[in-house]
Amino acid sequence: MRFSINRDRFVHDVQHVAKAVSSRTTVPILTGIKIVADHEGITLTGSDSDVSIETFIPKEEDDREVVTIEETGSIILQARFFAEIVKKLPGQEIELIVQDQFATTIRSGSSVFNLNGLDPEEYPRLPELEENLLFRLPQDMLKNMIRQTVFAVSTQETRPVLTGVNLESEDGELICTATDSHRLAMRKATIERNDESLSFSNVVIPGKSLNELSKIIEDTNDLIDVVVTENQILFKMKNLLFFSRLLEGKYPVTKSMIPTQSKTSFKLKTKPFLHTLERALLLSREGKNNVINLKTLEDSRIEVTSISPEVGKVTEHIDTVDMQGEDMRISFNGKNVIDALKVIDSEEIHIVFTGAMSPFVIRPVDHDNYLHLFSPVRTY
Amino acid sequence: MRFSINRDRFVHDVQHVAKAVSSRTTVPILTGIKIVADHEGITLTGSDSDVSIETFIPKEEDDREVVTIEETGSIILQARFFAEIVKKLPGQEIELIVQDQFATTIRSGSSVFNLNGLDPEEYPRLPELEENLLFRLPQDMLKNMIRQTVFAVSTQETRPVLTGVNLESEDGELICTATDSHRLAMRKATIERNDESLSFSNVVIPGKSLNELSKIIEDTNDLIDVVVTENQILFKMKNLLFFSRLLEGKYPVTKSMIPTQSKTSFKLKTKPFLHTLERALLLSREGKNNVINLKTLEDSRIEVTSISPEVGKVTEHIDTVDMQGEDMRISFNGKNVIDALKVIDSEEIHIVFTGAMSPFVIRPVDHDNYLHLFSPVRTY
Repeated sequence: MRFSINRDRFVHDVQHVAKAVSSRTTVPILTGIKIVADHEGITLTGSDSDVSIETFIPKEEDDREVVTIEETGSIILQARFFAEIVKKLPGQEIELIVQDQFATTIRSGSSVFNLNGLDPEEYPRLPELEENLLFRLPQDMLKNMIRQTVFAVSTQETRPVLTGVNLESEDGELICTATDSHRLAMRKATIERNDESLSFSNVVIPGKSLNELSKIIEDTNDLIDVVVTENQILFKMKNLLFFSRLLEGKYPVTKSMIPTQSKTSFKLKTKPFLHTLERALLLSREGKNNVINLKTLEDSRIEVTSISPEVGKVTEHIDTVDMQGEDMRISFNGKNVIDALKVIDSEEIHIVFTGAMSPFVIRPVDHDNYLHLFSPVRTY
Repeated sequence: MRFSINRDRFVHDVQHVAKAVSSRTTVPILTGIKIVADHEGITLTGSDSDVSIETFIPKEEDDREVVTIEETGSIILQARFFAEIVKKLPGQEIELIVQDQFATTIRSGSSVFNLNGLDPEEYPRLPELEENLLFRLPQDMLKNMIRQTVFAVSTQETRPVLTGVNLESEDGELICTATDSHRLAMRKATIERNDESLSFSNVVIPGKSLNELSKIIEDTNDLIDVVVTENQILFKMKNLLFFSRLLEGKYPVTKSMIPTQSKTSFKLKTKPFLHTLERALLLSREGKNNVINLKTLEDSRIEVTSISPEVGKVTEHIDTVDMQGEDMRISFNGKNVIDALKVIDSEEIHIVFTGAMSPFVIRPVDHDNYLHLFSPVRTY
């Protein structure tokens, strides 16, 4: 193998595939990045067997020559070193040459690296997916859906299926749900599909995979194709494939958890309420329980308090809008509500309580594309 | 005690004194910040007994009222919470009220904090220094002197005196030296002094203190007064006092270590040489020894190499200027030389070798205000 490539373009893609590579793998060959040169361009692959990323750099892009291939071939190079090395190379161009025994030379400017490569034949094949369950949505929308749900997945391995985000779809609507059984985040969106009868459920993507995917997705409305199979999901972008394993197990039915009636409800400005809770959390996180108390007052106001026996107490009174229903006094995990308020883009939210010991709901006022559900905390 | 204060101005000074407070102190009262209100303004103090910082906020600044004092007094508040709280308060103004039993109320906008304070009488007094050894220099120059030496102090407690930077002065010149016995950084500067006969040596300031001081010093050429006593040093800025304990013990005499003759020498561009070493370090740090090899070639060129038996090898050829003396082959700790090159502001450096197993010197070409000395590493 022998090719020259524009350094910046190469670095861009090497960083992408390196995201999939873990240094703590039990399969030594997976600490490497696979590089394949054929007559069309360069293909790079990285994988930790849960997530695999494959990118393609074509010979020409925007009428500009990016790669010059002198000899086709392939090699595996240690991801950790290779990604650092290409980033720091001094020249505009990089030349990569593989000789006998996988000995690899990288030249750029004044710099010559001789690296020990590994046999590309030993690299596992990526899954080949039959493209039957296919839909598409804009990249920026997918990025938002991830941001607005993935923070709520469980970090505990006791119920592995809750460490993922659940996808289900019917009638052209995609619903993403994440819950750690104390809080739930749900996000809906409209998708494009080839087959009008497309319908699926219990497609659970590990939260970790979605966090990696989110770093790669760009803020454009270019469409991204999504292929779902029994145990894999594939996100197809221009010149980039992102594969993730799906989680096994039955995801809980969450629709029935969301209360439909209301005992007390009001509207609040999102950002000021977030800042009030952040101040209250300064004291309540000291006890490591993050408990914040909220009660309704007269004149449509609410009082937010939190206490640390050692440090002290904080009290804030806030005006609300459209307060309806009974007086209410409730305690909750402030950190969980803060997490949700941080991903709500709307200026105003609607909070609906169903009782002091029942879950409550926060939604944006201006649309119903997402909602957040929280269990209260018993403080007596 | 009762006063109102501009929030941003208060936050600025609280952040400064909080830098001196350690949460891992054995003296519980030192986890707090002392706040004193008198008729002139507010004084804040933080200390970990090694470093103490005292700032003063006058009632008026730039013809603007900053503080309104309604009742004088003092209190100690937990630094960790207090610093976070004032930063997050919602209003432009903060009101602080101390009632009986050190119960403290902080009001700002919609927010009311009730904090448990501590008895200010229990707070240790700051050292009172007789101002006999006094000199002054511009703040930005002191900041540079710290940056260009403190990285070279020892992190090992086996020879405590080497964890500090040594100050000595004679004939209006201040010399700062740091060494961990493998490398040495030396920086000279001209200072102003009241007493023309000012002369001192073996004033060793803990590196940790200087790092904190450096965060507080601003990039201005306002003068800073320095008072030196037997076991304390005091840096006096406008409305801010920074005290540090000095290290005990005899600092080694370093002047004699600096070679005066040369066997081989040449000049190099600083930045490209730094980048070459950074690339070489990618491989040599793998073996945890950071060894980089340098040898002279024909035509005034040098070769820089490093090897990781597992990963591979890197080789770079660089042009030098004014090469003089014998052929040379030497190995050194690349991380140490990189640290020094990063703080050299000059475009070009002069390297002087005195033999393969003797220390070598790097200096800027355009002045002799600083130099860096390195021991070679034996590789056979």
